[in-house]
Amino acid sequence: MRIAVLGPRGSYSEKAAMQWLAETGSEENYVIEYCDDIQDVFTSLAYGSIDIGITPVENSIEGSVGITLDMLLGSDISIIGETVVTIEHCLLSRGRKEDIRIILSHPQGLAQCRQFLKEHFRNIELRTTGSTSHAARLATEFEEMAAIASRESAQMYGLNILIPNIQDREQNHTRFLIMTSSGSSADYGQAAKTGRKHPFKTSLIIYLDRDRPGALYEILGEFAHKKINLTKIESRPSKRALGDYVFYIDFEGNISDDIIKDALYNIESKVGMLKILGSYPMFKADITRD
Amino acid sequence: MRIAVLGPRGSYSEKAAMQWLAETGSEENYVIEYCDDIQDVFTSLAYGSIDIGITPVENSIEGSVGITLDMLLGSDISIIGETVVTIEHCLLSRGRKEDIRIILSHPQGLAQCRQFLKEHFRNIELRTTGSTSHAARLATEFEEMAAIASRESAQMYGLNILIPNIQDREQNHTRFLIMTSSGSSADYGQAAKTGRKHPFKTSLIIYLDRDRPGALYEILGEFAHKKINLTKIESRPSKRALGDYVFYIDFEGNISDDIIKDALYNIESKVGMLKILGSYPMFKADITRD
Repeated sequence: MRIAVLGPRGSYSEKAAMQWLAETGSEENYVIEYCDDIQDVFTSLAYGSIDIGITPVENSIEGSVGITLDMLLGSDISIIGETVVTIEHCLLSRGRKEDIRIILSHPQGLAQCRQFLKEHFRNIELRTTGSTSHAARLATEFEEMAAIASRESAQMYGLNILIPNIQDREQNHTRFLIMTSSGSSADYGQAAKTGRKHPFKTSLIIYLDRDRPGALYEILGEFAHKKINLTKIESRPSKRALGDYVFYIDFEGNISDDIIKDALYNIESKVGMLKILGSYPMFKADITRD
Repeated sequence: MRIAVLGPRGSYSEKAAMQWLAETGSEENYVIEYCDDIQDVFTSLAYGSIDIGITPVENSIEGSVGITLDMLLGSDISIIGETVVTIEHCLLSRGRKEDIRIILSHPQGLAQCRQFLKEHFRNIELRTTGSTSHAARLATEFEEMAAIASRESAQMYGLNILIPNIQDREQNHTRFLIMTSSGSSADYGQAAKTGRKHPFKTSLIIYLDRDRPGALYEILGEFAHKKINLTKIESRPSKRALGDYVFYIDFEGNISDDIIKDALYNIESKVGMLKILGSYPMFKADITRD
């Protein structure tokens, strides 16, 4: 099983992969491939050079990862699982705090630590990298550089943890999607299913016919009338015009359930586009609120 | 009238300010103040050091501006208007294309040109700045630096336009909000209203009681049954826990209309929190799709 994650070594995506493998009891035969960015994970899936791709989709502080949502719309993939990783960003460097002139991280890492950066490093240079671990690797080059990355990255790249736990909220979690190519014949999804006893979740994308008032309400009615619980609804620009959106909807249930089949049958006749991304075991929700 | 925008001079926010002043016929008495970042615009409003604050809220390629949404929730402001600016990002530098080692821009600018950067500058260093015009100003320092910023910034800072129109979609628009402090006694909103003949729009934020299935459906029903047209619905993390959201809803109508008052009265009893951000004239929608 070849698994693509954001690289280099020590990324939160790699942590997500390890966690998912442990949760599903499929830790034996795998190779991790490290991609430069999220698009490359999807491209590798499309080319068939990997079996499974893992990318972040949403963070509890900064929200959705736009590029993942866009790639889900544009790619031929199936979601077969999800996992939630606890994020503890640290400020890492070879040098001392007072030497730091440049801070590097993934844009989500910078955004999750916005207050911290504003308070402690107001006029510092901020550089974006493809991942937090990439930032850590680059920070090994000069003492004046620091990375916002995980505790594990510090160890992996021989950096000092100057300040731990620097994100703007104590609670910080990122949800990752586990995906295969839709054309994939191997059933990793099945492996995932048998390893878990959690309820299922289904993800889809819809595009409504424009300017029809109440259209979204009708769609949500299909779920509400059947007591299907929505776990997420998110709008994203269709990129056709400002104010024109596609909707990403996650709900409890499996596409093989009759009630879900019925709902989707009804929805299909009411939307301009319906794309089903997959049904997969929900991550166990033991994450508490502040 | 003291107006705060993202600075320095030449920012798209400044363009939004000029456009809004022209649209509302209030071009005579104003001073522009330039802020370092979006949070500072809100802070200046809170401190009363300015009368009007203008920040970007959503882009047609990259979607919502997270920090603006977060600040709307946390601040005591009223939205009194909106305007939509056509964005044409250019690659600007003192040097030649082949000299470029570093590209600077606002995170939204980098994201709107993601494909361009991947194709033409795959392994280049990317730095984030508080605004695109700030990137342009910094790019004057070294020939190896380029900024993603507006055509106007090139002129303002004496940079060459190496490549024009580099965003990933030809059509690129950003919507800006015009805001006052809620406590403001001066009625700039009224000035805005009399200058326009457009229909009104109202913006609000709601927080649903958690784990009540169909709750969002019920809220949308209040709008649908009254044929009130939603123009936007967007979820944003509540930051309490992953999977816990606040919803930003924009709809046609004015809070002084009886039908809107009724709807909001009903909604208030069904939600955990309702925050009304304001009613204001809609930007004239002459923006066409691709």
